Amino acid sequence: MNNHASVPVGVLGASGYVGQELLRLLAGHPGATVAFATSEAAAGEQIEAQRLVRADDAPLERAEVVLSALPHGISGRYVHAARAAGKRAIDLSADLRLSPEAVYGLTEVTRPRVAAAALVANPGCYPTAALLALIPLARRQLIDTEREVVIDAASGVTGAGRALQRELLFGEVAEDFRAYAAGNEHRHLPELTATLAREGGFTGDVVFTPHLLPVKRGILETIHVPLARALDRAAAEAIYDAAYAGEPCVQVTHGRLPSLKDVVYRNRVALGIAAVAHVRRPRLTVIAAIDNLVKGAAGQAVQNMNVMLGMPETLGLAC
Amino acid sequence: MNNHASVPVGVLGASGYVGQELLRLLAGHPGATVAFATSEAAAGEQIEAQRLVRADDAPLERAEVVLSALPHGISGRYVHAARAAGKRAIDLSADLRLSPEAVYGLTEVTRPRVAAAALVANPGCYPTAALLALIPLARRQLIDTEREVVIDAASGVTGAGRALQRELLFGEVAEDFRAYAAGNEHRHLPELTATLAREGGFTGDVVFTPHLLPVKRGILETIHVPLARALDRAAAEAIYDAAYAGEPCVQVTHGRLPSLKDVVYRNRVALGIAAVAHVRRPRLTVIAAIDNLVKGAAGQAVQNMNVMLGMPETLGLAC
Amino acid sequence: MNNHASVPVGVLGASGYVGQELLRLLAGHPGATVAFATSEAAAGEQIEAQRLVRADDAPLERAEVVLSALPHGISGRYVHAARAAGKRAIDLSADLRLSPEAVYGLTEVTRPRVAAAALVANPGCYPTAALLALIPLARRQLIDTEREVVIDAASGVTGAGRALQRELLFGEVAEDFRAYAAGNEHRHLPELTATLAREGGFTGDVVFTPHLLPVKRGILETIHVPLARALDRAAAEAIYDAAYAGEPCVQVTHGRLPSLKDVVYRNRVALGIAAVAHVRRPRLTVIAAIDNLVKGAAGQAVQNMNVMLGMPETLGLAC
Amino acid sequence: MNNHASVPVGVLGASGYVGQELLRLLAGHPGATVAFATSEAAAGEQIEAQRLVRADDAPLERAEVVLSALPHGISGRYVHAARAAGKRAIDLSADLRLSPEAVYGLTEVTRPRVAAAALVANPGCYPTAALLALIPLARRQLIDTEREVVIDAASGVTGAGRALQRELLFGEVAEDFRAYAAGNEHRHLPELTATLAREGGFTGDVVFTPHLLPVKRGILETIHVPLARALDRAAAEAIYDAAYAGEPCVQVTHGRLPSLKDVVYRNRVALGIAAVAHVRRPRLTVIAAIDNLVKGAAGQAVQNMNVMLGMPETLGLAC
Repeated sequence: MNNHASVPVGVLGASGYVGQELLRLLAGHPGATVAFATSEAAAGEQIEAQRLVRADDAPLERAEVVLSALPHGISGRYVHAARAAGKRAIDLSADLRLSPEAVYGLTEVTRPRVAAAALVANPGCYPTAALLALIPLARRQLIDTEREVVIDAASGVTGAGRALQRELLFGEVAEDFRAYAAGNEHRHLPELTATLAREGGFTGDVVFTPHLLPVKRGILETIHVPLARALDRAAAEAIYDAAYAGEPCVQVTHGRLPSLKDVVYRNRVALGIAAVAHVRRPRLTVIAAIDNLVKGAAGQAVQNMNVMLGMPETLGLAC
Repeated sequence: MNNHASVPVGVLGASGYVGQELLRLLAGHPGATVAFATSEAAAGEQIEAQRLVRADDAPLERAEVVLSALPHGISGRYVHAARAAGKRAIDLSADLRLSPEAVYGLTEVTRPRVAAAALVANPGCYPTAALLALIPLARRQLIDTEREVVIDAASGVTGAGRALQRELLFGEVAEDFRAYAAGNEHRHLPELTATLAREGGFTGDVVFTPHLLPVKRGILETIHVPLARALDRAAAEAIYDAAYAGEPCVQVTHGRLPSLKDVVYRNRVALGIAAVAHVRRPRLTVIAAIDNLVKGAAGQAVQNMNVMLGMPETLGLAC
Repeated sequence: MNNHASVPVGVLGASGYVGQELLRLLAGHPGATVAFATSEAAAGEQIEAQRLVRADDAPLERAEVVLSALPHGISGRYVHAARAAGKRAIDLSADLRLSPEAVYGLTEVTRPRVAAAALVANPGCYPTAALLALIPLARRQLIDTEREVVIDAASGVTGAGRALQRELLFGEVAEDFRAYAAGNEHRHLPELTATLAREGGFTGDVVFTPHLLPVKRGILETIHVPLARALDRAAAEAIYDAAYAGEPCVQVTHGRLPSLKDVVYRNRVALGIAAVAHVRRPRLTVIAAIDNLVKGAAGQAVQNMNVMLGMPETLGLAC
Repeated sequence: MNNHASVPVGVLGASGYVGQELLRLLAGHPGATVAFATSEAAAGEQIEAQRLVRADDAPLERAEVVLSALPHGISGRYVHAARAAGKRAIDLSADLRLSPEAVYGLTEVTRPRVAAAALVANPGCYPTAALLALIPLARRQLIDTEREVVIDAASGVTGAGRALQRELLFGEVAEDFRAYAAGNEHRHLPELTATLAREGGFTGDVVFTPHLLPVKRGILETIHVPLARALDRAAAEAIYDAAYAGEPCVQVTHGRLPSLKDVVYRNRVALGIAAVAHVRRPRLTVIAAIDNLVKGAAGQAVQNMNVMLGMPETLGLAC
């Protein structure tokens, strides 16, 4: 691996859960070095051998690539500053995901554009899993647009970030399970539907309901797909096999359903399929699982960075 | 409360999670006494001050009512024996739920028939929550039968019973979340659809997908209802308020969604409603939460027993 | 139970975890009615059918007994106000536990003084378990004062209260376990040693190390006792059996060790004993388990209230 | 890293938690290839791209090193077979830990002997943490042999293995915490005391009490050390700093106490120290944390393998 020069990488927003995961992954990445890491709250402290500075004090000149895990609403500004300083950048916030100035970095779907991009918007965690599950079916016009796609998604708590909120206290979350933003009120819905239209040609309705799981990591999405024509499980699996042939970070779990165990601490989406019995019109249920901090955030950002830099796509990543 | 004579109650199958919960509830019930309690595996041991005997050695003559938490496939036989001995009985297994010889004990829906019954089939945990959520809408023909009702249900592990299975080991379940019996393969589906037709007049399709939560107790169901005509949240809440006016064990959580915390250790169903935005045709999302061991099993059995005996319906129960 | 008049009880500090537990227990108490309940943060809201007011607005005149779960440093002042208004009071905070003006309410040890008291200081959660384990041995001079008593205690997170602290976020506590206040720095140590001297005559050294468990409820203490003379397990159990004969809220688990499951949601201390092999000088290990919110706080407060009011000691309590 | 030839490694017992962790670590090890992997229960199945065979069918000739995670009582026999076939071997079971034929592989303590060994006994998880905490103090005769060293250790459930036992069901372990083998009955005690005598010269008494935590991974030990002379925290930390200078897998957490979060998924022991106040005679409390599956088992085995093969000691390991 010593044929790769070590690329200096700057990390903006390194003390949240996503930022910590970026540092953890970069610490084990044989082709990258952390050039700087920022934190407002923890400036002056050390994480993973990095001394943290404030984002306004980030020595942008030292980095070749800048990754931002700053909060939504703040991140975009700093990413623009990194671009103005001539750096390639990946924004892990939602700020640029619907903007034409950035390439949407769903690696398995937009890889060629990512390779050429100066600015990548890293997908949201929920859309990553849903899109990788739905695009292969959408591209083949297999989804019945007359009936809604229903997605129930459950996420570990690190997906909600590290902000101090009473509802994220252990005493509130432990031994509990709840839906939130029900009724299509989650901000990931527009990202999901816009990308599904652009990359998959699907313009039907989607009902998306996130839930909070009493675990730290992992997203499982149960995706109910009305079909335009009948498909049995084997036929559906064959479609996914074809769509993701050779993809190192996609696992189709033939004949069993994936769970969080299959994906945590890995940069992998696991996809499992069931055909639905006892209904009049054809339907599939697709289960998609990712680690929200890895394939849903920091890992996919590193995957995109590797693609941008021409490195092996999974360098430093366990898929 | 001393105006109630203490009724002797026999418990068949007292060492599983449901059986233990029955003993716990009966220990605090001011109008009942445990006449006997059986266990095959733990015969001779004590639970909650009861010395366990084998089911074949149960002194049926000592009981006035017999509650059976024996396993599916076994329970029905012993319940018939209790009936043959002249005892009123409640079967918590699935054995008699689709049988005309027993009254289906969904208390809020079938109360008058329960009061008169000699034999009650206590509902399954998943159907209890789903039916209490759907019947008020079904009875008013508000559900669009052209589109499927989609139910994603998540249950704590005690719902799977106490049998020795590798997939129920702590090392397998903790920090995990998974769907099972996807594709409408769960045995509760026929109970659910048959009851929805009989009590609600609904004959459309249902897609039911259970999930296993890494908690001990509680069921949360996210129920996606296609509507025959538009309803906003307030109108939907008003329907539930009317349907369950005066019901001590039903809580409609106006303007917020319930979670497991609202219901564990209580004989309560909590129902919350969201109207779905950003879709072309009208839809509701209804969240229903129960404690699988209480309102989903032992608690509803005691509620039914109270109704059968003419006692106050919530005697010995925290709703 | 209708021979008890319903006593009006005021609850100060009803929105923390202990305050909520008080309301939960009083809601099921056949001899008590909540006269008022206070909360600074949630004034105006409802908990368990109580409309919350601010502590300064508490209608003290409506209550016969006042229970305070206000924070340490604040509670004492309000308890004094209740006393000045002529009310009997129980302070669940630490403010008065070392003060001669209040009776220390370790019910099984100080019952006669509690019965006569106008003002009771309810013990801390950690000392409750440790003292009930150690006092029977101390009173018989069985503890070797030349060697230290070592107590490792582990508590569920509700013991740390409901304040917004980053270290109590689910993302920090889940899947973790840690010691805190090691080196005898916990504020419960003086309460423990002073009471052990006063009630047990023990003046040796104690090393007390609390730990934070990733669960909501329960305390387990592993108490290492150097013995002045050898005792086998049966002899030690006989000492506890004699000390706690007839006590409804003490369980000696002969020949097995108790765990949190034995005590959560109950007003019970469970005590188990092991004699230590492979050491030169005699030692016992005593395991003590309680629910920190019940026997460690709200439950013991209700137990003391029952004693003060001459009611059956366990009225409204599951032991 | 391409200057290392890839060494073929055989894994005996690959379907338990330790065996799975071995496969996971070897999959990411740039200098090793899995030559074979065995499982009795899962022969024929795939784990981490390995097709499992029965242990009796293991193609020993294909491996250069054999690692055995077979159960105690069985492993030793297969390790002897590997040795008879001329292979270097590491036994992760307890079978050879007290035997003179194997080098005890506590890497930081016995590294030179491991490097030269044909047969290594990998330490138990509990002794690994305790010994790394105690040996630096023991070697300087700082431990008072007149008073007992008291160790309370808490382990995640994977430490108990993957066997089907009712007490390891999720419904039994979740939300619970309990001691087991109290009274010095755990089989790790002789391994601990014998090694402490041999490597540290300490012959005093030890009281060891393990506990079961409701988490999957991680061990935290709270180690109470009576001191032969007073040491403040800084002086104690200096002793550890000196003992472990340059060690990549030992972290001394100066001025704070480590927790499981510091060590899970890492091949690291974290050590933190508190001096004990309010006692007459000097004492330290040392907190030692490891991941039971990594530094407590599979990780330390890989570390030992690296040492045996002359590879960089942390190759393939995150410390």
